[in-house]
Amino acid sequence: MSALAGLLAFQRETEALAQVMGRLGWDQETMMPRGAAMQRGEEMAALEAVLHARRTDPRIGDWLVGATPQSEGEAAQIRLIAHSYTRACRVPGDLAAEIARVTSVSQGKWAAARKAEDLAGFLPVLGEVIALRRAEAQALAGGGDPYDALLDGYEPGITGAEIAALFDRMRPRIVGLRAALRDAPPAPVLTGHFPRGAQLALAQEVAAVFGYDFSRGRIDEAVHPFSSGSFNDVRITTRIDEAEPLGCIYSTIHEVGHAGYEQNIAQDYGLSVLGQGVSMGVHESQSRIYENQLGRSPAFCDWLYGRMRDHFGPLSVDTPEDFARAVNRVAAGFIRTEADEVHYNLHVMLRFDLERALMRGDLALGDLEAAWNDRFGADFGIAVGKPSQGVLQDVHWPVGLFGYFPTYSLGNVYAGCLHVALRAAAPDLDGQLARGDLSTALGWLRSNLQCHGGLRTPQATIAHATGAPVHEDALLGYLEAKYSALYGL
Amino acid sequence: MSALAGLLAFQRETEALAQVMGRLGWDQETMMPRGAAMQRGEEMAALEAVLHARRTDPRIGDWLVGATPQSEGEAAQIRLIAHSYTRACRVPGDLAAEIARVTSVSQGKWAAARKAEDLAGFLPVLGEVIALRRAEAQALAGGGDPYDALLDGYEPGITGAEIAALFDRMRPRIVGLRAALRDAPPAPVLTGHFPRGAQLALAQEVAAVFGYDFSRGRIDEAVHPFSSGSFNDVRITTRIDEAEPLGCIYSTIHEVGHAGYEQNIAQDYGLSVLGQGVSMGVHESQSRIYENQLGRSPAFCDWLYGRMRDHFGPLSVDTPEDFARAVNRVAAGFIRTEADEVHYNLHVMLRFDLERALMRGDLALGDLEAAWNDRFGADFGIAVGKPSQGVLQDVHWPVGLFGYFPTYSLGNVYAGCLHVALRAAAPDLDGQLARGDLSTALGWLRSNLQCHGGLRTPQATIAHATGAPVHEDALLGYLEAKYSALYGL
Repeated sequence: MSALAGLLAFQRETEALAQVMGRLGWDQETMMPRGAAMQRGEEMAALEAVLHARRTDPRIGDWLVGATPQSEGEAAQIRLIAHSYTRACRVPGDLAAEIARVTSVSQGKWAAARKAEDLAGFLPVLGEVIALRRAEAQALAGGGDPYDALLDGYEPGITGAEIAALFDRMRPRIVGLRAALRDAPPAPVLTGHFPRGAQLALAQEVAAVFGYDFSRGRIDEAVHPFSSGSFNDVRITTRIDEAEPLGCIYSTIHEVGHAGYEQNIAQDYGLSVLGQGVSMGVHESQSRIYENQLGRSPAFCDWLYGRMRDHFGPLSVDTPEDFARAVNRVAAGFIRTEADEVHYNLHVMLRFDLERALMRGDLALGDLEAAWNDRFGADFGIAVGKPSQGVLQDVHWPVGLFGYFPTYSLGNVYAGCLHVALRAAAPDLDGQLARGDLSTALGWLRSNLQCHGGLRTPQATIAHATGAPVHEDALLGYLEAKYSALYGL
Repeated sequence: MSALAGLLAFQRETEALAQVMGRLGWDQETMMPRGAAMQRGEEMAALEAVLHARRTDPRIGDWLVGATPQSEGEAAQIRLIAHSYTRACRVPGDLAAEIARVTSVSQGKWAAARKAEDLAGFLPVLGEVIALRRAEAQALAGGGDPYDALLDGYEPGITGAEIAALFDRMRPRIVGLRAALRDAPPAPVLTGHFPRGAQLALAQEVAAVFGYDFSRGRIDEAVHPFSSGSFNDVRITTRIDEAEPLGCIYSTIHEVGHAGYEQNIAQDYGLSVLGQGVSMGVHESQSRIYENQLGRSPAFCDWLYGRMRDHFGPLSVDTPEDFARAVNRVAAGFIRTEADEVHYNLHVMLRFDLERALMRGDLALGDLEAAWNDRFGADFGIAVGKPSQGVLQDVHWPVGLFGYFPTYSLGNVYAGCLHVALRAAAPDLDGQLARGDLSTALGWLRSNLQCHGGLRTPQATIAHATGAPVHEDALLGYLEAKYSALYGL
């Protein structure tokens, strides 16, 4: 067997085991009896140890030296495996195990602290997580910028400085738009009672409209919606609040965006390193364009309004136009995951600046809450009243996900680029969306982006699909045009 | 770290990974989308390779040499790990992989052949499976009897010759009882429509009555009911036929017997080699005593009759006595899994004799169908009409489970022994059962048998619980007394 064949066969088994790990995570959030939590922790730790040993197996180094790619796909696989292998080998095994141990416990401590609004009690835990992740970042960076080394784990090929520059360009236009919208008459709110069964039925219908392949997936309920798995087993979850149906519908569309990306990757790439979304940012671009540029478009709202009335009877908003305004209602709020399109990136920018400063040692842990609350008050015009509205709201930092937040906004920026290119390729898109016909949009995304999986770098993946370099103007122009029209600015 | 500590830490991770494998199997039968079947096969093969490598890891041999047990529990763990290690090392890796490959495909071929009633087309596949398992048996036996070597994988410490002698002693009394019952007036049949939701609600109620701990398990539907998992995550499945509710209720009680055994093993044994049922036969003894000696006792039927009427309204049988006769109706049938207590062991004896002859080379594959059908006609008095009623009915042989069948009857024999001892310890058992109160019976089984897990050998496990050696008289006496009374012999 050639070095390349040996490498790829070994990697295929690793990918299969990584899928098993994903399935355990899915089970934990959807099916697992509560008494199994400790046991599941040991099961996942044992499997993680297996995966870590495989990812740092010295045979990979030998195979990489001897492997000669014969195609673009083989070259991409070698590049991705080498990237993963180098990163895995740079982190001492003891440190990796300690991070796994501490962060598996810190999630529970965070949940308890958030419930008790006890930030002071949680700060020592967070400090330990930060110290460990900083040590890991320094090992990964090899003399380079530690924050960039963490970012590289989620969005290879972009630096913190580039993101800072991007956010500096985006920020004034978003703040300007937000200020203008604050002075406009508010959009209506959808109220009423929306039975669980009808919400689930509509969510399934909408998932099908957005191309979700139920023969290779399923929908269950979970507290926090997520998508899980690759290739031919890609499952999503949704949540249901009988007083508020839009959360169920749009979180379903969001997760179908993630899942559709995975399901539409070329079958030949299955269980290879090419067979999954190329980065967190590109992944988020798919969930966001499904959810926002397509799903929250006034044209699609027109269709959805009819389906809502069929499922729930008369609504508290009387026209498709008012329904679209309710769906796209802009209002400052504390919680990132509930934010509208206009405010969303401001949440991310706040976290990016603070986590980069924390990781670089420019912000002391004791100053974190004041820094957050000051910045939030300035950006959103409302005062944080308790830690669950502020520092303790997200699970990311407690479990060590530093460098992850900016990929959410990169996803929005990418989605903006894809949306402009899609509109150019599909002049009648609004007409189709108003009929609930997503076929042109989904086909365009599938053939231009999704099918390629990990073949190209993240930014090259977007540029290949759009024919142009990534630029924030597409997103900002879209936001300004859409919300000016919806709010009659 | 001492050799013993190293060994036990290593084994704990292996046990955790084995639990993961079990969870994948559960998911496959309950939750997995159908399009994921091929992918799941690769995932399970990758995990199986990890487990095989761990089970044959040469460090185990070193640790075993250096390990010095300080307690009965440690000695038992060393004994069980050594047993597993010796067996795993005796089978060449290529052969183990080939068996895994062939049997993973043969299950699908069997299902298709059974549906098409195409035994001739399936025999070459079965021949390949038999040849591989015979090669494995010879490797395991190291000069001893190959069939015994396979049996040792399911019920350590018993030989084919001992089982043959046991069955020779049991057979005349069962045949005699069956003949007497055939001449008696038949028992009534329960008919009607039993809605799915009510069956599931009653199944959950009955599971709780039989001590199933829902905080460490869950009930789902599957085509073939099963129990899965150990320690704090033990899940069961049931099946529902709206024309026939007893299948749902009694398969639930049966699986709760398996699950209760796992859930009640001492918590200290969790994720160790002691932390699971000690053998297939002892496992079956728990499912059988729950299902039959307890669940099908006239006293418990009295209670269940009332609950049935509460859930389903008036029944086609008018009295608790007639309900008990319907529950315990004896009738010759082709399908082992649907057999009554009297006929069940005759099914097993048939398979035992045939599979032992096949494995020893005393029966040619081409003669299998005739041998089966002749024996069945003689034993059951009805003629096999098609392969799905005969050779193709069970999945066991197609997937290579030779040596497994006799453990079903061993389970019945063990259950008979346990039942006699339980009755002696709980003189008012029938009074309790008639109130749906299983606490004394379950407590006795838990403290005398279940909590000990793999501490003792299978036969010693039963003898420890009953205070007497295993003997078939207990089962046969129970059957003769119960059915003579029910049928007024």
